[in-house]
Amino acid sequence: MTDTATAPRIDASHDPRLRSWVASANGPGCDFPIQNLPFGRFRAADGAPRIGVAIGDQILDLRAAGLVDTDDMNALMAAPPAQRQALRARLSAGLAEGSAQQPAWQAALVPQAGTAMLVPCRIGDYTDFYTSVHHATNVGRQFRPDQPLLPNYQWVPIGYHGRASSIGVSGQAVRRPRGQLKAPDAATPVLAPSRRLDYELELGWFIGAGNAQGEPIAIAQAEQHLFGVALFNDWSARDIQGWEYQPLGPFLSKNFASTLSPWIVTLEALAPFRAPFTRPGGDPQPLPYLDSAGNRAHGAFAITLEVLLQSARMRAEGLAPLRLSRTDSARAAYWTPAQLVAHHTVNGCNLQSGDLLGSGTLSGPEEGEAGSLLELAVAGQRPVALPTGEQRSFLEDGDTLTLRGWCEREGAVRIGLGEVSGTVAGATGA
Amino acid sequence: MTDTATAPRIDASHDPRLRSWVASANGPGCDFPIQNLPFGRFRAADGAPRIGVAIGDQILDLRAAGLVDTDDMNALMAAPPAQRQALRARLSAGLAEGSAQQPAWQAALVPQAGTAMLVPCRIGDYTDFYTSVHHATNVGRQFRPDQPLLPNYQWVPIGYHGRASSIGVSGQAVRRPRGQLKAPDAATPVLAPSRRLDYELELGWFIGAGNAQGEPIAIAQAEQHLFGVALFNDWSARDIQGWEYQPLGPFLSKNFASTLSPWIVTLEALAPFRAPFTRPGGDPQPLPYLDSAGNRAHGAFAITLEVLLQSARMRAEGLAPLRLSRTDSARAAYWTPAQLVAHHTVNGCNLQSGDLLGSGTLSGPEEGEAGSLLELAVAGQRPVALPTGEQRSFLEDGDTLTLRGWCEREGAVRIGLGEVSGTVAGATGA
Repeated sequence: MTDTATAPRIDASHDPRLRSWVASANGPGCDFPIQNLPFGRFRAADGAPRIGVAIGDQILDLRAAGLVDTDDMNALMAAPPAQRQALRARLSAGLAEGSAQQPAWQAALVPQAGTAMLVPCRIGDYTDFYTSVHHATNVGRQFRPDQPLLPNYQWVPIGYHGRASSIGVSGQAVRRPRGQLKAPDAATPVLAPSRRLDYELELGWFIGAGNAQGEPIAIAQAEQHLFGVALFNDWSARDIQGWEYQPLGPFLSKNFASTLSPWIVTLEALAPFRAPFTRPGGDPQPLPYLDSAGNRAHGAFAITLEVLLQSARMRAEGLAPLRLSRTDSARAAYWTPAQLVAHHTVNGCNLQSGDLLGSGTLSGPEEGEAGSLLELAVAGQRPVALPTGEQRSFLEDGDTLTLRGWCEREGAVRIGLGEVSGTVAGATGA
Repeated sequence: MTDTATAPRIDASHDPRLRSWVASANGPGCDFPIQNLPFGRFRAADGAPRIGVAIGDQILDLRAAGLVDTDDMNALMAAPPAQRQALRARLSAGLAEGSAQQPAWQAALVPQAGTAMLVPCRIGDYTDFYTSVHHATNVGRQFRPDQPLLPNYQWVPIGYHGRASSIGVSGQAVRRPRGQLKAPDAATPVLAPSRRLDYELELGWFIGAGNAQGEPIAIAQAEQHLFGVALFNDWSARDIQGWEYQPLGPFLSKNFASTLSPWIVTLEALAPFRAPFTRPGGDPQPLPYLDSAGNRAHGAFAITLEVLLQSARMRAEGLAPLRLSRTDSARAAYWTPAQLVAHHTVNGCNLQSGDLLGSGTLSGPEEGEAGSLLELAVAGQRPVALPTGEQRSFLEDGDTLTLRGWCEREGAVRIGLGEVSGTVAGATGA
């Protein structure tokens, strides 16, 4: 079987000349032009969850527009790619300027402002990977100075299972976790609020159709099982992590909260922003089950990401959030989403519609491209200066952390992933 | 707040003189006497999942008996302990000899033989712990000869998130996982079927009522959030594990399959089999958030466990399964279930009804008490001899592995956890 099926299809829905009758979708900096059409769940006026598509500053209520007869996002995500592409074509045609649908669909619009968004789907299992070799090296250096990058890194898409229950949506208040902390020179640990609370800049890839247990997904078919992507902040307590993580990996240092952006940008929308998968010179090529012609040609995604921080004092003083980093590191991830799917299932593990695969922290190679404060402030050795004169080695109560992401290139309309933000609240159990 | 609420209550439902009008429940070796009353889900004649209670060799269909109006086990599990105790009292009275319910409930009985059991509830998140210090030491010695037991072990109830989607119920055929294997002297890994497939003898503790995100469960209240226990086989591919597990823990070596016994024995049923929580002399006492008077007095559970293996050839030759080990190690676990709940939530992580907490492999201190083949056969150095003349260092295709568990003591009726079995099938993707 070839993997031509996974070649990203660019069609009329990507045409840069397309404009929407929803005027706000046509602005130059808009995250949600008609070429994007991301899916999310919002709370309808009756309080029930409803599936919507973002267009400009509006949400098209898919049920009200007569496009679906379900409020179950997971069922929609599980549909075969051809069915998803057909829905995208209908959305594109119906929202385009001059569409005959305009009168009917106008009534199915809900303003994004003031509408509560929900976690976009039911996440059965969440797996977090470790696909940035820069992050793995930076963090490895702090936890294991003698051997920052372990020998398996270049061969195994390292990943581990995370906690699904504590994943929330943008706007989440994140309580500072208490946990066991042990200073290197202390004889015993103490229970205390984390003093090294951090964020992690990640992408979250959602599974569309799953696979049966015992039946691996070949890499050539892997993208047919990917639905789309959102921004993902994997909040981390570095001090809890350092003490607990051996030998079975991070646990309470991560599972208190993770935050998603509300809109899933589909693989179809990302078609113009694909990039070749390459390896740094001299690094080994992936094993055959992680390699395919299609993955080499266009397995990567060119997404720009940035991180912004606003302290409570900045907010009080009317100061805009400070950009901590900006990076194109997603494109250079050491493993592509298709490789993650092929690896995750090679042992027969069953993925299910709505499962979330985190990219791991996407740090780039340069200063100012780090995806965590641990890296930016070099474990507290070089605190980040805020415009108020405050300093940050780790997050403080009241800090609002925001991730943004978008794709742009010559000849295509810019599409956005929107943003995910969360604010640090007081400690648990305090 | 004191933890008298968690003191195990022994009441009329535990009376050893109680007998059931379901005759098979009164046999001396029966796992499911009227003092037990474990919950499970079975496939009803119409194909739908239904909640049942095991009694002798029968299942009481709770909806047909008019005891519940739901087929949602998670909802039943989320009920407050008082409500669960009331249901237990009704079941006990209705199934007792001479009960007026007999004619009505007789029609609500389904024979266990020939009825398909399901995973007992919807498992949102599954966490696996590492509560046997003997297992941690045995395995640590093989993975890290210089430092078998890491310094955090005596302080932190070590745990990690596992895969919920691949958890099945007794009877499961488990395909041998393929994965990356790397011999110590090889330059590069290869993809191949695991050659070191193993089982792990565990208990699986189920969460009843959950907690809100950000709101820890104090240890004195922890048992109110525990619903009950089942047997759990956490199949493991040791060769995949050895190569992949650093730095983020086991992943594909574990997530291809785990198998549960179908019946959840409730905390109420286990009341007569509680034991004090003690630490080996000289070991540190738990931090205050992991300590309470109730936990010290009766935090542990006296459950006897055993492991049986039958190869395909043994089956063909009509030979009974061979007992590989028997152990009372559950009672001596380094952390109690209440401590696991308190630890899991101290950072604000939210548990949900139906979540599963694995005990980790429950090995005892003596030979013949090991909970895995890795330990029994000392990583292949001392293969186990089967009555056919075959030898086992790890599991072979066609092997059926069965775990059994029960509680017994003077003055109480023996109750059983039933059994969980699974058979190794050919490799994935072969």
